[in-house]
Amino acid sequence: MEAEEIHEPDEGSDAYALKPELFAELRAALEAGDAETIDRLMEPLHAADIADLLEQIEPWERRELIELWHGGLDGEILSEIEDNTREEILGYLSPEQLTLAVRELESDDVVDLVEYLDDKQQEAVLDYLEPLDRVAVETALSYPEESAGRLMQVETVRAPQHWSVGEMIDFLRAHPENLPEQFYHVILVDPRMKPVGNVTLGRIMSSKRSVKLWDIKEDIFVTIPATQDEGEVAYAFNQYHLISAPVVDEDGRLVGVVTIDDAMIVLSEENEEDLLLLAGVGENTVSDKVSATVRRRLPWLAVNLVTAILASLVIAIFEEAIAGYVALAVLMPIVASMGGNAGTQSLTVAVRAIATKDLTGSNVLRVIRRETMVGLINGAAFAIVMGIVGIVWFGSPMLGVVIAIAMVINLVVAGLAGTVIPVALEKMGVDPALASGTFVTTVTDVVGFFAFLGIGAAVLL
Amino acid sequence: MEAEEIHEPDEGSDAYALKPELFAELRAALEAGDAETIDRLMEPLHAADIADLLEQIEPWERRELIELWHGGLDGEILSEIEDNTREEILGYLSPEQLTLAVRELESDDVVDLVEYLDDKQQEAVLDYLEPLDRVAVETALSYPEESAGRLMQVETVRAPQHWSVGEMIDFLRAHPENLPEQFYHVILVDPRMKPVGNVTLGRIMSSKRSVKLWDIKEDIFVTIPATQDEGEVAYAFNQYHLISAPVVDEDGRLVGVVTIDDAMIVLSEENEEDLLLLAGVGENTVSDKVSATVRRRLPWLAVNLVTAILASLVIAIFEEAIAGYVALAVLMPIVASMGGNAGTQSLTVAVRAIATKDLTGSNVLRVIRRETMVGLINGAAFAIVMGIVGIVWFGSPMLGVVIAIAMVINLVVAGLAGTVIPVALEKMGVDPALASGTFVTTVTDVVGFFAFLGIGAAVLL
Repeated sequence: MEAEEIHEPDEGSDAYALKPELFAELRAALEAGDAETIDRLMEPLHAADIADLLEQIEPWERRELIELWHGGLDGEILSEIEDNTREEILGYLSPEQLTLAVRELESDDVVDLVEYLDDKQQEAVLDYLEPLDRVAVETALSYPEESAGRLMQVETVRAPQHWSVGEMIDFLRAHPENLPEQFYHVILVDPRMKPVGNVTLGRIMSSKRSVKLWDIKEDIFVTIPATQDEGEVAYAFNQYHLISAPVVDEDGRLVGVVTIDDAMIVLSEENEEDLLLLAGVGENTVSDKVSATVRRRLPWLAVNLVTAILASLVIAIFEEAIAGYVALAVLMPIVASMGGNAGTQSLTVAVRAIATKDLTGSNVLRVIRRETMVGLINGAAFAIVMGIVGIVWFGSPMLGVVIAIAMVINLVVAGLAGTVIPVALEKMGVDPALASGTFVTTVTDVVGFFAFLGIGAAVLL
Repeated sequence: MEAEEIHEPDEGSDAYALKPELFAELRAALEAGDAETIDRLMEPLHAADIADLLEQIEPWERRELIELWHGGLDGEILSEIEDNTREEILGYLSPEQLTLAVRELESDDVVDLVEYLDDKQQEAVLDYLEPLDRVAVETALSYPEESAGRLMQVETVRAPQHWSVGEMIDFLRAHPENLPEQFYHVILVDPRMKPVGNVTLGRIMSSKRSVKLWDIKEDIFVTIPATQDEGEVAYAFNQYHLISAPVVDEDGRLVGVVTIDDAMIVLSEENEEDLLLLAGVGENTVSDKVSATVRRRLPWLAVNLVTAILASLVIAIFEEAIAGYVALAVLMPIVASMGGNAGTQSLTVAVRAIATKDLTGSNVLRVIRRETMVGLINGAAFAIVMGIVGIVWFGSPMLGVVIAIAMVINLVVAGLAGTVIPVALEKMGVDPALASGTFVTTVTDVVGFFAFLGIGAAVLL
């Protein structure tokens, strides 16, 4: 890794954002083919910022920049780039550039780089690795996608459980070249390579040489099965404030270590996934092309169309009522919209609570009770407001009563549906963020239209 | 801290969730007043899990559990509990229990515990601290809310920049009692206490005693101003894969250190905030009471009511058209609903990209262009479908044409509004997750109804 330093950040909310002036200068330099200026502009940037920069410029600018810049794309930059852009770039890198890029990475970063490549590309990249590194990467790739086995690095620092501080320090000094770039714990293992404890480097350094590692091991110790889902791994790190945790195979033997920086990335991705799923966008990012974006959004809109037609069928039942009393058509979207919003509120709180394991069998009934009460209270409040609006706007007290009753019904149903639907999906093994939104708004649309138009038709005509 | 071990997690998606049987047994023991069983059930649990457990049971169960359980609420558990529940518990803890709880915490955890208490309660807790700890906590509290100064711990491990590995290790061994519980770097400082570099413990341990710390310092080094927003701090940790970073005052002098586990919590909270804001729920959690929940959701529903009425006013313009051609009323929610969904899709992608600094001045025009194209393509696709539905359902080719045109218009507008509105809010210094949703659906409702009913009135009557 080359030396790099982050410029002292300005205060304020854009401390770490790339500056617009940088883009302007860079584009001018690209247009002029001025490699020297490009080198000067790129030099102070951190690999992660270079990755962001590459994602934000146009594809042709990207290609030109990579060709002109003498710094060259190293493995660190490549592993920071978001999947689609990376795939594009890998397509035109020379074999020499690729070799240089992958050789300097830790095994987990190489895995991250190649896991979504097609078999042929993957094979090509792996060919550039040293034999031992290649075995490490292939082992990781043998674990399921999005598992701890994919996330871990195979390079671990371990010691027999009977070692002393002095033995440990001597061992580390004797083999500095074998140590991973970052490590925070020494993992104690028993003779069969099962991890039995973690010792922080801080404790080792501040203890006398004669002290046994076993006596200064951490109080909390979590081992992670290699097949465990990476979302669970991230949860464990966040919940138990872990810094690193050993990964074990099915026999309980040490096969690698997951560190908190990787867990943090997963946590952030999982949160993003929930957010995007709730909005019905799958894995869409701003750097996706038009075709990829259409592909990711159209199916969700299609589902929404079906449910919207369902709601329209309910309206169609009351065609005559509407023709005879047009105010019903004017006001009906209000009841549906309020229900949809209240349902989305309940739903989002529930989905989030399920993800953080705060909504479980032990409190689901309490939450449902609370949501019903909240729906009732909010419904009553807006029933009064809308009742008055109905009277003032259309001069009909009965219309006011009808919309008020429909409002209460729909907001109670919204609270119920917003909680029960994600909980039920989760019980069925479906991600509650997926599809919940559509189900909930379908329920609130149908119930909203039915209640308002049904009561209206019965009372007003 | 007492010794604790996480039971080997089962595989599957609920590896770390609290088991329903635990709650059942605990409730039975509470009912029977059986303190022994309670102790046995609580003993293997980690502080973070105990906190979750306390949040999930009823308030009266909580109080009884705390009274019966001999383990006692320590500071670690308290600092893990979510704000509302914690405030309730602090209300009935005895002064002795509080003293015990806060004394064993690092300064950043004490800050976290007391920062949202009212002045009197805060004063009471601070009184239990040793004078030096008290100064540390009060210094942190002097920084703005949600700043790096609040997040940092004041206990740092630092060394003059000219020290060698040997000097460092001797120093650490001589004063083990002064070391923080967890630390990952030694911070090198110049004579005026300005941090000039970070050395990882791993590098120190694997280097010879004569090696200068300066020569093995990390390549990447970020210092964080104490007044920086905690969201920016979390971004820096995630972006640059930091493990710990020194915090400096306005003169650039070292005042503390932020570690990645705290940054991870902030990142997770910021993501949660975005998710909840987008759904219009503020800081609502499943453990909030009914009154708190109503208070957090009602204002957003009120805003939605105003915008829904706005949409109804648009419909009211076309009352006559609807009375004469009821199919318009039946189909109009479809156009609005599709627009609202497409707008939410664009919006969510944009809000997320703004949060991760992937949508900036450098690519905003490209993203807007893309969103317009996506809107056009999706609009055209659904225009064809709805055109056919219009013809088949109502036997009117012209109605099909009308809804098709309205669909294209609304989906293009949705893509535009979903991107432009959050970008504009962000430019104005408003959190783009806040209120964007309401603005976007207002636009798509109004445009959708206006386009469909307007064209319909002109063409069909």
